Amino acid sequence: MNVILEFSIVPIGVGTSLSKYVAACERVLAETGLHYELHANGTNVEGEWDAVFAAIKLCHEALHQMGAPRLSTLIKVGTRTDRLQTMENMVMSVQSKLEKSG
Amino acid sequence: MNVILEFSIVPIGVGTSLSKYVAACERVLAETGLHYELHANGTNVEGEWDAVFAAIKLCHEALHQMGAPRLSTLIKVGTRTDRLQTMENMVMSVQSKLEKSG
Amino acid sequence: MNVILEFSIVPIGVGTSLSKYVAACERVLAETGLHYELHANGTNVEGEWDAVFAAIKLCHEALHQMGAPRLSTLIKVGTRTDRLQTMENMVMSVQSKLEKSG
Amino acid sequence: MNVILEFSIVPIGVGTSLSKYVAACERVLAETGLHYELHANGTNVEGEWDAVFAAIKLCHEALHQMGAPRLSTLIKVGTRTDRLQTMENMVMSVQSKLEKSG
Repeated sequence: MNVILEFSIVPIGVGTSLSKYVAACERVLAETGLHYELHANGTNVEGEWDAVFAAIKLCHEALHQMGAPRLSTLIKVGTRTDRLQTMENMVMSVQSKLEKSG
Repeated sequence: MNVILEFSIVPIGVGTSLSKYVAACERVLAETGLHYELHANGTNVEGEWDAVFAAIKLCHEALHQMGAPRLSTLIKVGTRTDRLQTMENMVMSVQSKLEKSG
Repeated sequence: MNVILEFSIVPIGVGTSLSKYVAACERVLAETGLHYELHANGTNVEGEWDAVFAAIKLCHEALHQMGAPRLSTLIKVGTRTDRLQTMENMVMSVQSKLEKSG
Repeated sequence: MNVILEFSIVPIGVGTSLSKYVAACERVLAETGLHYELHANGTNVEGEWDAVFAAIKLCHEALHQMGAPRLSTLIKVGTRTDRLQTMENMVMSVQSKLEKSG
């Protein structure tokens, strides 16, 4: 089961500068070989269900290890059986509708 | 790693009556032995990371099997290393603050 | 436009004990007259779009005033034009499906 | 109160092809003059609280008008009083941490 997913982890109890925690999680993702993209409100990832969720668990473990005592994470995950969808064609599909109507 | 989690699955492409899909997922949860609670906007669950995420995956599989071609799921998950927290004491902790101030 | 909504505010930069902030927001809600319910992962609210979102804004303002320098909030909001739905009948609708199948 | 926000609207009851609804909402955003960015799992927006939430409400109204009987929307919103943050410097801040450690 393939997923298109977004997640963002909020470390709690370590002050207000969170970018080093986001960077640590990006390094975890880089090692997984998964396709991912950082944006201003989270990270998009695609791949097999188990591989993607294992990566998020590794991020939780890495951030706790860095000293974050509490983490609150939002995950939005989509699966579909009617056709294969990629992050790239989700955006392209909207763009094409915008061009037609422009 | 223990989690307190909330999730809600939106089946897409099967009309607007979604309660039978929510019910199917509740039945999946009942079989896992996990502690869970349905509320108006989702289901709260607590337990070991792997067990809880395995349950959500089973729900996705069950709902696709029922004919839902596309699913969009929101998961909010919290972990902490400073102390053990349960769904029950999260609510009680807020209630006690409200009583003191009342 | 009526909404059924859930939200949860995570204060960042004020340590790991967040219940007093949740309690402050519950007091804000109590004064609005809106129908709301606290649960382990957030607060469910229903009402007119503008009234409900005004209440969430008041919570943000109140928590910043209490000293939280940064807030991260998750909102899940549903609207529908086909029929009126309440938080109560969303849960009852699932329960009735579970009883039939039991 | 300035916000950095992400939202995604899931239309329910109109089949599985949702890109024309996403496109309609992008056109609503384009008319507001707000700074926004579409990505694979949602749309990032920044601006004044009231302006941004008014735009999301307009999207709900536009999509119901197009015939979507039910909408489920996820909003993640951040506010901070310690310093001004933009979507651009959130990403740059993480990138700089990644470069230092590379």
